[in-house]
Amino acid sequence: MKAAVFHGPGVGLKIEDVPVPGIGAGDILVKVAACGVCHTDLHYIEHGVATFKKPPIVLGHEASGVVAECGSDVVAFKAGQRVLIPAVLTCGRCAFCRHGRENICTDMRMLGNHFDGAYAEYVAVPAKDVLHLPDSIPIEEAAIIADAVSTPFHAVKNRARVQPGDSVVVFGCGGVGINAVQLATAAGGRVIAVDVSERKLEWARQFGAAATINAAKVERVSKEVRKLTGGGADIAMEVIGNPRTIEEAFECVRTGGRLVVVGYTHEAISIVAGKIMFKEIEVLGSLGCRPCDYVPLLRLVEQGRIDLKRQVTHRFRLDEIGKAFEVMKEGQSLRSIVAP
Amino acid sequence: MKAAVFHGPGVGLKIEDVPVPGIGAGDILVKVAACGVCHTDLHYIEHGVATFKKPPIVLGHEASGVVAECGSDVVAFKAGQRVLIPAVLTCGRCAFCRHGRENICTDMRMLGNHFDGAYAEYVAVPAKDVLHLPDSIPIEEAAIIADAVSTPFHAVKNRARVQPGDSVVVFGCGGVGINAVQLATAAGGRVIAVDVSERKLEWARQFGAAATINAAKVERVSKEVRKLTGGGADIAMEVIGNPRTIEEAFECVRTGGRLVVVGYTHEAISIVAGKIMFKEIEVLGSLGCRPCDYVPLLRLVEQGRIDLKRQVTHRFRLDEIGKAFEVMKEGQSLRSIVAP
Amino acid sequence: MKAAVFHGPGVGLKIEDVPVPGIGAGDILVKVAACGVCHTDLHYIEHGVATFKKPPIVLGHEASGVVAECGSDVVAFKAGQRVLIPAVLTCGRCAFCRHGRENICTDMRMLGNHFDGAYAEYVAVPAKDVLHLPDSIPIEEAAIIADAVSTPFHAVKNRARVQPGDSVVVFGCGGVGINAVQLATAAGGRVIAVDVSERKLEWARQFGAAATINAAKVERVSKEVRKLTGGGADIAMEVIGNPRTIEEAFECVRTGGRLVVVGYTHEAISIVAGKIMFKEIEVLGSLGCRPCDYVPLLRLVEQGRIDLKRQVTHRFRLDEIGKAFEVMKEGQSLRSIVAP
Amino acid sequence: MKAAVFHGPGVGLKIEDVPVPGIGAGDILVKVAACGVCHTDLHYIEHGVATFKKPPIVLGHEASGVVAECGSDVVAFKAGQRVLIPAVLTCGRCAFCRHGRENICTDMRMLGNHFDGAYAEYVAVPAKDVLHLPDSIPIEEAAIIADAVSTPFHAVKNRARVQPGDSVVVFGCGGVGINAVQLATAAGGRVIAVDVSERKLEWARQFGAAATINAAKVERVSKEVRKLTGGGADIAMEVIGNPRTIEEAFECVRTGGRLVVVGYTHEAISIVAGKIMFKEIEVLGSLGCRPCDYVPLLRLVEQGRIDLKRQVTHRFRLDEIGKAFEVMKEGQSLRSIVAP
Repeated sequence: MKAAVFHGPGVGLKIEDVPVPGIGAGDILVKVAACGVCHTDLHYIEHGVATFKKPPIVLGHEASGVVAECGSDVVAFKAGQRVLIPAVLTCGRCAFCRHGRENICTDMRMLGNHFDGAYAEYVAVPAKDVLHLPDSIPIEEAAIIADAVSTPFHAVKNRARVQPGDSVVVFGCGGVGINAVQLATAAGGRVIAVDVSERKLEWARQFGAAATINAAKVERVSKEVRKLTGGGADIAMEVIGNPRTIEEAFECVRTGGRLVVVGYTHEAISIVAGKIMFKEIEVLGSLGCRPCDYVPLLRLVEQGRIDLKRQVTHRFRLDEIGKAFEVMKEGQSLRSIVAP
Repeated sequence: MKAAVFHGPGVGLKIEDVPVPGIGAGDILVKVAACGVCHTDLHYIEHGVATFKKPPIVLGHEASGVVAECGSDVVAFKAGQRVLIPAVLTCGRCAFCRHGRENICTDMRMLGNHFDGAYAEYVAVPAKDVLHLPDSIPIEEAAIIADAVSTPFHAVKNRARVQPGDSVVVFGCGGVGINAVQLATAAGGRVIAVDVSERKLEWARQFGAAATINAAKVERVSKEVRKLTGGGADIAMEVIGNPRTIEEAFECVRTGGRLVVVGYTHEAISIVAGKIMFKEIEVLGSLGCRPCDYVPLLRLVEQGRIDLKRQVTHRFRLDEIGKAFEVMKEGQSLRSIVAP
Repeated sequence: MKAAVFHGPGVGLKIEDVPVPGIGAGDILVKVAACGVCHTDLHYIEHGVATFKKPPIVLGHEASGVVAECGSDVVAFKAGQRVLIPAVLTCGRCAFCRHGRENICTDMRMLGNHFDGAYAEYVAVPAKDVLHLPDSIPIEEAAIIADAVSTPFHAVKNRARVQPGDSVVVFGCGGVGINAVQLATAAGGRVIAVDVSERKLEWARQFGAAATINAAKVERVSKEVRKLTGGGADIAMEVIGNPRTIEEAFECVRTGGRLVVVGYTHEAISIVAGKIMFKEIEVLGSLGCRPCDYVPLLRLVEQGRIDLKRQVTHRFRLDEIGKAFEVMKEGQSLRSIVAP
Repeated sequence: MKAAVFHGPGVGLKIEDVPVPGIGAGDILVKVAACGVCHTDLHYIEHGVATFKKPPIVLGHEASGVVAECGSDVVAFKAGQRVLIPAVLTCGRCAFCRHGRENICTDMRMLGNHFDGAYAEYVAVPAKDVLHLPDSIPIEEAAIIADAVSTPFHAVKNRARVQPGDSVVVFGCGGVGINAVQLATAAGGRVIAVDVSERKLEWARQFGAAATINAAKVERVSKEVRKLTGGGADIAMEVIGNPRTIEEAFECVRTGGRLVVVGYTHEAISIVAGKIMFKEIEVLGSLGCRPCDYVPLLRLVEQGRIDLKRQVTHRFRLDEIGKAFEVMKEGQSLRSIVAP
């Protein structure tokens, strides 16, 4: 089959012919319908972040498709069924899995990182975490649910715990951030979206933001937020992974409010401890999404509360994947998908 | 001033000329813009439920208006400002108030029940609980926020704790129930509305219900709900106050789910204890709404997430209030307001 | 090996020679050190409740022991290690398991009910749910952690959510109830214990109850509780499974309080719905205990916060198991264990 | 009456004769039984932190006593009753008070900071927040409940939310920290106490710590904590207010765990943002204590779960207050009280 194989930082992706992956007793083989193109892949390709499986490895972790074959122990699926594959699969046995926190599983395995991913015609995955995709959801666009939509869903529902009427500031309106905007709105929040790109802020308004702030055009975002909210937001979410932005997001939170860190950075942030204490602010991290949260998430998509179509701004064939990354780097796309 | 005065169960309401109420140092006098007509009033007028203040008493507890005069200690308001008056006012000192549960205040006082209400040209109330009404919300329709909208808001947000993607069954689609439908939807819920009136079910669909069940036309509502949800709803809300309906709502809840009792009945319900235990079901009561919850609620209304206009199906002058009750009893109205 | 085999309601238990059970790749074989004798067994033996596995079946679900043999896939255990076996084992795959609610697993399997239990020299169980038993905990007494202690631990920690300073009424001070008393105390609660047996109330005081009520000697327990708590308990727990007692426990709860139903009954309770609503009371079920909660529970036992020794009032050899049931029926024991 | 009056940073405290304070309609006059001596006072006296009321001001915020006189509106108290005065009084009207978060009241007023305090024979306070002191609690020692015990009670119960079996690291075992140790233990926690003073660690063990770490004698506290807990503590609490210690406390927390900042510092802490995100750690502030939490707290003291006697290591007459501060600075006292 055709696949986009990663051969290491200096080399990048190559479209190659590789064997269709074999499946174990508990696995299913999925004929890929589409796979989302994600910034995370750029970290491997360009920024020297190592994949857990040593290259060569097929990248791609945001995938939908149709079941091609089932392992001997698999009872929940049969060939021909439409499925969505969570980006991160869990062990189901560690303390975190058992406490209902599968997203911080000790032994999590990520598609296109720990094992071969979905920039390919076929992908093999354990059946345990795979979801049936309702007929009413278009199969190609569905791919992006697996990360760009699910990651902010966990952040909004389980970490920010947005309630109807909450004021919510979202920093970063890219592929993941735009869904934080959309999902916080779907949860009843009044969203203020922050970015430095007018194009992305325009998207944010289309996806439900009640107000937007161009961080490049104001002195202090936190000052604007305090004006718009009468003293500070109930909740701030940082979906970029920039230490300075996280610090500014912290300053946006009202006394007794909550900051959720969704974006990753290995750098340190500097926060006045007395503010955390005296204002009783909560700072919480948010990582990925539990497979079990895909059930209510798919319900939201089915109801039309989450717009997938409009956020898939670009589509490519698998052998055009290089172009997809170019478009992403130029900031022109909200989300691209590739289809074999 | 003109007021609709209640003279006791046998006598009903009479439009009379009464003195404009005096105000204490912490009170404000409000020129009433409109007052919602509520089933609760019928309990006093027709069903022998006693008001806390002995008749004669001016009824009416769902009011908006304009500040006419302020007591000497009042700093938060001045004459001419638009206001919304919560139906129930709190002591601010009891253990419940101090734990953030003002809605179950030991010493709560209800407009048009403990003291003279708003079926009148003017009403006097403690300033502590009154809210500024944003300019963008039409002042007459705003009246119904004070009970028909706020009561299900508390139920949805604080008791049912609806999260995005939850399946929610709402029993009863009258003046309060329709807002349970609307608010559970605004919180991201997928609502199944239940009633015996096709007209009300049509309204429920207009206000966001994803599905409806006519309880008069099916064998068992719970059976239909299980079909629609794949085993039971995450949350059931009963907004009628009928013991048989509460029992049926209980049957609609999935293992690990939650039943919220919003409707009042003095009668007993009968539930198999082993189901509560073995399915770990939660049964929770919900009473009124805390004044502090009006802040996010008004934000939802401002954002257009709550439609007030369409639910005010009838308008009357104060001296037509008898007609308003007729229309309500005939089940033709969703919500009526009277304006002096 | 020797085992106490259940041959059906009319026949009871017989000590027989049966083959040592075989193990699968993920299982371990445990040489039983002791097994607690539980009322649940009486339901099978005397009250016609059917076991999931058709008799003949070895009963016994509260067991500790030493690993005798490990299946080929087992990495967490090796022969000779001391272990505790949770009474109920989980699938790890259903929605409840994945939401951190393993105790209401759709596909739960109970020792000595779905498969052969621990009234035997050896028992075979899936390794996934088994726990390492710290050296400081005596192995025989440890057996009763597996149900008599774990069931109220879940109830106290996850359902009643007892916080320091809470007033907690516990109805029923038998083998499970006495641990509800002990654990609610360990969580900082002030416990009022209720029973009709003076002997059990004396035990309750020894295990931490701050006050006791003999239900046979007062007009209404709820009246006494209101006196002792100044208006009602924060939390009531029913650990008997008697509909009348559950109703009385409900009456003990203050406005805004919580009733937790731990005891099982297939009968209905009758509760005035308006009290649930108007007092915003919560009624919650509690079932079993998640395997993952055994970790903090074992920590409590290690710290000496839970007294096991004193509650194991009787010890029998496996072939004396008939006597153990006699003693239990006479109400003389708090908890008995049998050792092969 | 005699009082210790603060005349400003350069001048310190002077014992003077001042008029007995007058009371308003809602106030009570309390004859002081004892007042705890707190580090906070040193901030005013020696470190240039300004009091909200300009000097001269009577300091002292941790007081118990007997009601001497009641304002005309006071119904809850009468002369001769024993009372405890919370260190911080609340407005009862702001959004935080109404959400049950009185401890972050917008308009809070602190004894001996916003108005004259209790280093005096009499103190006047609003009756609203004062508590009846049960007869079984010794009146002088009770004073320290008002801050040294209540502040960590809020932290343990409402912010750390310690549950039975949780592992809890407490940094700092002084007057407040020792009660964090004692209260986390009373809530069922297994406490590891950290300090640089062997004397304080010995106290920590006496007050319930299961293990202690002398931070001056180990390379990294977090390394020791990980060893003792098998990977990190469920909860870490910093009760010092040292940025470096807060950072170290953060490192002690396991994946999915919680850090509570109780100590105040105006300095910044530096934390790797990716750890918050990837390990889903929660960082929470904790400030003071709600008056309503004194009710369960007094219950704990009555039950003997909180030992007051042993922590009052030194007692002084009011005119010896200078000595009390000397002893505190030398680190010899756990808590001192002064009695007029």
